[in-house]
Amino acid sequence: MLSCQLSADWQHHSTSYEEPTLGDSPYGSLWPLPQKVQISTVVFKLSGASFHIFDAKASSSGASCRLLQNAYRRYDEYIFTSSRKQGQNKSKKALASDMSELQVWITSADSECDSYPSVTSDESYKLSVDSPVAVLKAPKVWGALRGRVHGFYSTHCLYSDEEKSINRTDIHDFPRFAHRGLLLDTSRHFLPIKVILANLEAMAWNKFNVFHWHIVDDPSFPYLSRTFPQLSQHGAYHPYTHVYTPSDVKMIIEFARLRGIRVVPEFDTPGHTQSWGKGQKDLLTPCYSGASPSGSFGPVNPMLNTTYDFMSMFFKEVNTVFPDAYVHLGGDEVDFSCWKSNPDIQKFMEQQGFGMDYSKLESFYIQRLLDIVTTTNKGYMIWQEVFDNGVKLKSDTVVHVWMGNKVEEELQKVTEAGFTTILSAPWYLDYISYGQDWQKFYRAEPLSFKGTDAQKKLVIGGEACLWGEYVDATNLTPRLWPRASAVGERLWSDRDVRDLNDAYSRLAKHRCRMVQRGIPAEPLFTGYCAHEYKGV
Amino acid sequence: MLSCQLSADWQHHSTSYEEPTLGDSPYGSLWPLPQKVQISTVVFKLSGASFHIFDAKASSSGASCRLLQNAYRRYDEYIFTSSRKQGQNKSKKALASDMSELQVWITSADSECDSYPSVTSDESYKLSVDSPVAVLKAPKVWGALRGRVHGFYSTHCLYSDEEKSINRTDIHDFPRFAHRGLLLDTSRHFLPIKVILANLEAMAWNKFNVFHWHIVDDPSFPYLSRTFPQLSQHGAYHPYTHVYTPSDVKMIIEFARLRGIRVVPEFDTPGHTQSWGKGQKDLLTPCYSGASPSGSFGPVNPMLNTTYDFMSMFFKEVNTVFPDAYVHLGGDEVDFSCWKSNPDIQKFMEQQGFGMDYSKLESFYIQRLLDIVTTTNKGYMIWQEVFDNGVKLKSDTVVHVWMGNKVEEELQKVTEAGFTTILSAPWYLDYISYGQDWQKFYRAEPLSFKGTDAQKKLVIGGEACLWGEYVDATNLTPRLWPRASAVGERLWSDRDVRDLNDAYSRLAKHRCRMVQRGIPAEPLFTGYCAHEYKGV
Repeated sequence: MLSCQLSADWQHHSTSYEEPTLGDSPYGSLWPLPQKVQISTVVFKLSGASFHIFDAKASSSGASCRLLQNAYRRYDEYIFTSSRKQGQNKSKKALASDMSELQVWITSADSECDSYPSVTSDESYKLSVDSPVAVLKAPKVWGALRGRVHGFYSTHCLYSDEEKSINRTDIHDFPRFAHRGLLLDTSRHFLPIKVILANLEAMAWNKFNVFHWHIVDDPSFPYLSRTFPQLSQHGAYHPYTHVYTPSDVKMIIEFARLRGIRVVPEFDTPGHTQSWGKGQKDLLTPCYSGASPSGSFGPVNPMLNTTYDFMSMFFKEVNTVFPDAYVHLGGDEVDFSCWKSNPDIQKFMEQQGFGMDYSKLESFYIQRLLDIVTTTNKGYMIWQEVFDNGVKLKSDTVVHVWMGNKVEEELQKVTEAGFTTILSAPWYLDYISYGQDWQKFYRAEPLSFKGTDAQKKLVIGGEACLWGEYVDATNLTPRLWPRASAVGERLWSDRDVRDLNDAYSRLAKHRCRMVQRGIPAEPLFTGYCAHEYKGV
Repeated sequence: MLSCQLSADWQHHSTSYEEPTLGDSPYGSLWPLPQKVQISTVVFKLSGASFHIFDAKASSSGASCRLLQNAYRRYDEYIFTSSRKQGQNKSKKALASDMSELQVWITSADSECDSYPSVTSDESYKLSVDSPVAVLKAPKVWGALRGRVHGFYSTHCLYSDEEKSINRTDIHDFPRFAHRGLLLDTSRHFLPIKVILANLEAMAWNKFNVFHWHIVDDPSFPYLSRTFPQLSQHGAYHPYTHVYTPSDVKMIIEFARLRGIRVVPEFDTPGHTQSWGKGQKDLLTPCYSGASPSGSFGPVNPMLNTTYDFMSMFFKEVNTVFPDAYVHLGGDEVDFSCWKSNPDIQKFMEQQGFGMDYSKLESFYIQRLLDIVTTTNKGYMIWQEVFDNGVKLKSDTVVHVWMGNKVEEELQKVTEAGFTTILSAPWYLDYISYGQDWQKFYRAEPLSFKGTDAQKKLVIGGEACLWGEYVDATNLTPRLWPRASAVGERLWSDRDVRDLNDAYSRLAKHRCRMVQRGIPAEPLFTGYCAHEYKGV
C-alpha cells in the first residue's frame, strides 16, 4: 500500500504516462485519422437551413436503402439539431461560400445495402469537400458509413456553437485492419439493451466494425434460447428482467448492421459454463470430494453423448439467430481439477488413452464441438489455448490472442501455422490504472512480431476487451470511451500514425464530440468541453 | 508495461485484493454500521397506504421545521414511490403486524432546525422500531437526519420489489469522528450544479457531513466573485457556462444544510493560483528568464501590499458567502522556482533576512493571510505543509494531512503540537487501480499512530479526496460511489468494525440501494441489482 501511496506525494503529477503538450492538430478533430487526407485553409459555410444530404444520381443505392437514409438522418441531427433550434445564422467571419449539399455515391453495382457486413466488406471511401457540393464516393454502403461518420463531419469547427463550417478537404480512406472489434461481457453484469445500443453507436463513431458479444459465462446466462428456455430461466440473474429475448437480440443485430457493425456472439465452452448447468441437467461434470460427488460442478462433461446432442441443437439455434459468418467458441481457461476428481472421467481418460493429459480431454471435446459447428456452416473464432493445445482447426479459423505474456511469439506461431488471428492482449480495458492509459493502448503495434509478409497479412485485426467484473450500466460507457478510441485509431489508421501529441489534440476534441452527442466519454486530462455532459 | 500485462494472464482473477466470501450480513444493508444495534427476527409490515412519518408530540421541532419536513418527504419517496405506484399489497408471508408510524422526537429545547451544521453538532440518535410505532429520538435535527437515512430505512428487505417490511430493531448511534468529509475539485474540470447536488445527496446516505469544495485552482476559476467578477470572467473555462454564480453557491449550501452537511470552501494560495492571475493584474509573481520577465507567472506575489489588500477584500466576501465557521486556505505545493528567478523577490528576501530559505517567504505570506482571515472571525484549515514550515497557527486550526509517506509521524507531530487534524492520505480516490480497492480505503485506521489519548482526540476525522484531473460529469459519480462509502463507514462506525466479508455483503446491498435511488454507484464485483441503473 505504501508503494502505491508514495506516488501521491505530489497531488497532481504522478503517472508513468507522458503529458502530451497541448496544441492544435492540423487534422482538427479527425479520429481515427484517414489514410490520406488533404485539408485546405479554404472554409465553406454549412447552413442548416439549406444543407442536405442527397443520393448521387449515378449511385447504385438511394432512397430505397434504409441503411443510408437512416444514416443521413442520424448525422443531420448530430450536426444541425442545436443550430436549427437557434434558428439563425450569426456569421462572424467571411466564409468562402456556401456548401449546400453532400452527394453520396455508391459506385459498385451491388451496394450491399441489405446485406450484413463481413470481414471482407469494402469499407473504403473517397470524400471530396468542395463548393457547392461535397461528394462521398464509396464502392459499398459500408464505405459511405465510414466516410460519413468521420470523413465529412469531423473536421474543423463542427462541434462549436458557432456557425457550422468545413474546410475544403480531400480524403481517400480505408481501414488498415478488417477486424476492429470490441468485446462486452453481459454475464458478469447484465447490460440493459439501452447501454448496448449506446455503445454500438459510439463504436460506429470510432470506426469499430465488430461487436464481440461475450453473452454468457459462469455468473449468468442472459441469452434467452428458444430451444432451451430453461437455460436463462434458471441461469440468468433474473428470468425476465435480466435476459435478452429473441427480439432484443434481433434489434441489437439490426442496429449494429445499420452502422456497419458485425455481431459475433461468444458461447464459451467447456469452461466458463457454471450458469449453463443451472438449467441443463447433466451438462456439467460433477466434481467429487473423495469417493462421492461434492455437489459442485466443473466444465462441460465431455464423455456424455447427451452433451453433444445438446450442443448440436444449441448451435443450430445460434446459427439461425446470429447472421454473422462467425461464432466465437471460447475455449479458454479450462480448469482440470474437477475432471481429475471424477472417477467416471478418469475411466474415460484411460479408455481414450489420454494418460494423465487432461488437455487431450479438452481437445477431444473442442474437436467434436468444432465439427458440430462446422455442419452449421459457421466459421469460428477461438481463444488462443485451443490452438496452443493442438486442436485441429478449420483453415478459416480465427485465433484470438489474449494472453499478456509472449504475445509476439504467439502471433508468430499462429501465423506460421497459417491461421488468421486477432489481437486483444494489449487492449484489456478492464485493467485500469491512474493517468492517461490510452497512451499505452495507442502505442501497441499488432505487427511488431517477427514473420514474413504473408504471416503479417494473417493478422486481420484486434479487439478491445472490457470484461465485466467491475463494470455495469453505471460506469461502463465512461470507462470505455475514449480509451477504446485509442484502439480504434490503431486498427484503422496507417501504422505510422503514432504521434502522441497530435493524437492527444484530436482525441480530446473527438471526446468532446462524443459527449455532446450524449455519450459520457470520460476526460483524458484536465480541461473542459464547450458542452459538458448533461446527465449525472 | 509487461509487468502490468502479466497480471492479465488469467482474465478474471488477478488483483492484490481479497475476494470476500459472499454471504448475508446479520446487519442486512445497514451502512455505515451503527454503534449499537439489535435486530430481532420479528418482522413488521410497512404499508405504503397507511404508513406515515410524524413529529412526536413532545418534540421541540415539528411542522414548522423545513429541514425535517423536507427530509420526511425525501425518504417517503425513496421507500414508497415504486410500491405506491403499483397500488396493491400482495402479502406473501404472514408478518407480525403492521408498522404504521414513525415518530420523530427532537429532545433538546433548541432543535437547531434553522442553524448550519458545525463540527460540534450533535448527530446522535436512538431508534426503536416496534409495532405499531417506531420512534426516532435525537437531541438535534442532525441526529434525526442521520437516523432517518440509515437507522430506519436501511435494514432488511427495503429495496426489494416485495412488500416493504422492517425488523424489530433497536439502535443507539453516534459518529466516531465529527469531521467526515469529501473533497471535490471544480477547477480541473467544471462540475455542473446537478452533479454536485446529486453527490451531496449520496454523501448524506453515507453519513458524510463536510463538503470540502476545492472550488478554484490553477486550471480554472469558476467562482463568480461579486467583489472581483473579473476573476471568473477571465479565469473560468467559460465566463458564463462554466461558473458558479452567487445563487448557485447559495443553493448548494442550503441543499447541503438540509442534509446536515457543512460546505467548507477552499481558496488555495499562494500556489495553485494560475487562474487567479488571468483576471487580477499583479497578483502573481512574474517569473524571469535571465534578466527579463519570461511572460509566465508563479505563486501569489508576497512582497506587494496590493496582494494583501486584495486578499482582505476577497476573504471578506468569502466570509459572507460561506456560512461555515471554517475556510480551507490550502497552502500546499508551493513551487519556489519562479520566486527564485525574480530579482525583486531576491531583494525582498535579503531585506527580510530570509537568506535563501524560500519556505520563510512562503510562511511570511501565509502568516499575513492567516491574520487577515482571522479578522473575519473564520477558523481555517490548511494543508500539512503550512504546519511543517513552522507557520504560527491559531489554536483552533485544522491541519489537513495528505502526504502519503510518513503519515503516522505527521499525525504524531501535529497532535503533539496540540492542533486538531483531519486525515486524507489513505483516501485519495482519484488514484484508481484494478479490483476492489474499496478494501484498501476501508482498512485504513486514522488512530494507528503513537500518541496519548489526548493526542488521539485531536484527530477529528478525515476526508476522501477526488481530485479532478481525470473526472468530470461523465464519470465522477460512479468513480466516487461506493468507494467513498468505505471511508464513510471508517469515519462513522466503531473502530472494531473491520470485517471485510460482512462489509462486502452490506456494501453490495447499500450500493444497489444507491443505484435504485438514481445514483450510478459502480459495482464492487460480479453480480447484479434487482433494479439496475436506468440511465446510460
